[in-house]
Amino acid sequence: MDEFSFIDSIKPDSYRQSSLIKGIDDDAAVFRQNTQDIVTAVDTMVDGIHFSRETMEPYSIGYRALAANLSDLAAMGAEPAFFMVSIVIPSDWAEQELQEVYRGMASLGDGYRMDMIGGDTVSGKEFAISITVFGYVERNKARYRTAALPGDILFVTGTLGDSRAGLECINKKIDNEYLIQRHCQPSPRITFAEQLSSFNRVALNDVSDGIASEGSEIAEASCVDLHIAYDSIPYHSSIAELFPNQYQEWILSGGEDFELLGTISEREWPEVQQKAEELNLSVTKIGYVSEARESKGLVYLTMDGRTERLEKSGYTHLQEGRD
Amino acid sequence: MDEFSFIDSIKPDSYRQSSLIKGIDDDAAVFRQNTQDIVTAVDTMVDGIHFSRETMEPYSIGYRALAANLSDLAAMGAEPAFFMVSIVIPSDWAEQELQEVYRGMASLGDGYRMDMIGGDTVSGKEFAISITVFGYVERNKARYRTAALPGDILFVTGTLGDSRAGLECINKKIDNEYLIQRHCQPSPRITFAEQLSSFNRVALNDVSDGIASEGSEIAEASCVDLHIAYDSIPYHSSIAELFPNQYQEWILSGGEDFELLGTISEREWPEVQQKAEELNLSVTKIGYVSEARESKGLVYLTMDGRTERLEKSGYTHLQEGRD
Repeated sequence: MDEFSFIDSIKPDSYRQSSLIKGIDDDAAVFRQNTQDIVTAVDTMVDGIHFSRETMEPYSIGYRALAANLSDLAAMGAEPAFFMVSIVIPSDWAEQELQEVYRGMASLGDGYRMDMIGGDTVSGKEFAISITVFGYVERNKARYRTAALPGDILFVTGTLGDSRAGLECINKKIDNEYLIQRHCQPSPRITFAEQLSSFNRVALNDVSDGIASEGSEIAEASCVDLHIAYDSIPYHSSIAELFPNQYQEWILSGGEDFELLGTISEREWPEVQQKAEELNLSVTKIGYVSEARESKGLVYLTMDGRTERLEKSGYTHLQEGRD
Repeated sequence: MDEFSFIDSIKPDSYRQSSLIKGIDDDAAVFRQNTQDIVTAVDTMVDGIHFSRETMEPYSIGYRALAANLSDLAAMGAEPAFFMVSIVIPSDWAEQELQEVYRGMASLGDGYRMDMIGGDTVSGKEFAISITVFGYVERNKARYRTAALPGDILFVTGTLGDSRAGLECINKKIDNEYLIQRHCQPSPRITFAEQLSSFNRVALNDVSDGIASEGSEIAEASCVDLHIAYDSIPYHSSIAELFPNQYQEWILSGGEDFELLGTISEREWPEVQQKAEELNLSVTKIGYVSEARESKGLVYLTMDGRTERLEKSGYTHLQEGRD
């Protein structure tokens, strides 16, 4: 494969973001932003670790890699603007497969009028894709983990455990289009997060590692305790039907659902529900925030009438309780 | 290795850039820049391709990876501000080795008061490091490849071929500290590029792929021809002594010297020389710019009284001429 001709084949013909000054054609990209704050994150996925080329189409590999990054922007309340793609390409990947990876990214990015403004393509033995995203957020409206306060409602968008269940469907060749789609082409909650911009204070994390981990991050950063009622956690009925022995674990720590976990004042909660409804997105109260009982904020889970501490790494205490 | 404790160990204690609003502790970093333009680039290096763990210290792997990125900022005339590091870690890398990689980056970045504001650490079979850099440049002062004009002086900083020769020293166990240092810990020409900010028009490219390639990029982007006089290309005496059969090739296309190749008006050239002298950096006129003779800009090399076309991919025509 000729690197130059490949780069030419994926290079955009034109750019859409008015803040962009120089795109792909120089040593670096240049943009200007004098009214909003700039939000940026990077996320890397490796074949055999984060997905398997054996079971995931190149199109979905690209789509999902960008979705994971956009989910980080959503968790900051930011509007997507640009992305750069760094890709390690083994010799057995055909140019057409690589173009599919970029087509998957474009198909998601186009919906937000994002521009691809740079990247790097290098050879290697193991396929890896690293995406850097850039977004804009109204000044002082970035959504931090530190923003939770005692008395807040704890909420989550969509349903949890779908992505992990979708992976199992792929691996076990179970034909459930919904779950497989949720795994391969997750929907970052960009629009919903943008709709929350009218609120002064919202804490947000995206559910990349499961709510046990994401909840702990909010609890620690805000020095508050989070209390989750297990029975209120939203999940899709098919995961309970297909995986009765595993779905409870996946709901808590399956991860990669790329939903949003957040907290907001009780007073503003009805308005959050209304905004979600307007977007046809489900949003569910799964608990509340209280002052931290110990020196650092923790997460507690109530299930079958028992309350246990939920560990960041997974959910050890509860697991013991449930056996 | 515990990912959380490793990330804690490399996380900066404090940040230096006043434009930074949120660093590593959330889903994404946030910064604000309302007076200058923002410049960003990404560069990836893979073990076994861009370096070998067998022959390069982890400290140098980190140093060199960031240097390659800073060189892109230099080529845009930008002042470094931030970087994010995405790293694929095989299981046989010890935590201490990884910390050395980060120490190498910090040691270079600290000199420019850069902040590490994000990243990703993932598992994989093949070590790879992908760095995204962010810099600032005065509005409308970014240095593009498109800026060359007929009549310009073509110049290059430092000496060429050193990095390729340094790699050969490492591989052949030849003890030449200067060349090995030039390969392992190259110096991006940030300060020199910043010193050029008083000029309205400068074309700049950094020499990552050799001047044959970088020159072609300027020629194509500016639709001009570049004329290089081989005898004027600066090189370090030791590469001719150590590698008499190879150094001529390396000067043209060895790459990774991370010097700057640029063009500027003849009138302003003496001032460029003076600025370089003040920094104790050598800068050499190696040719000139003329109108393009064909439909796209090309590079011509004059050597031993003969002028040949220098190809982007290497220097085919000249090679034939020299045999």
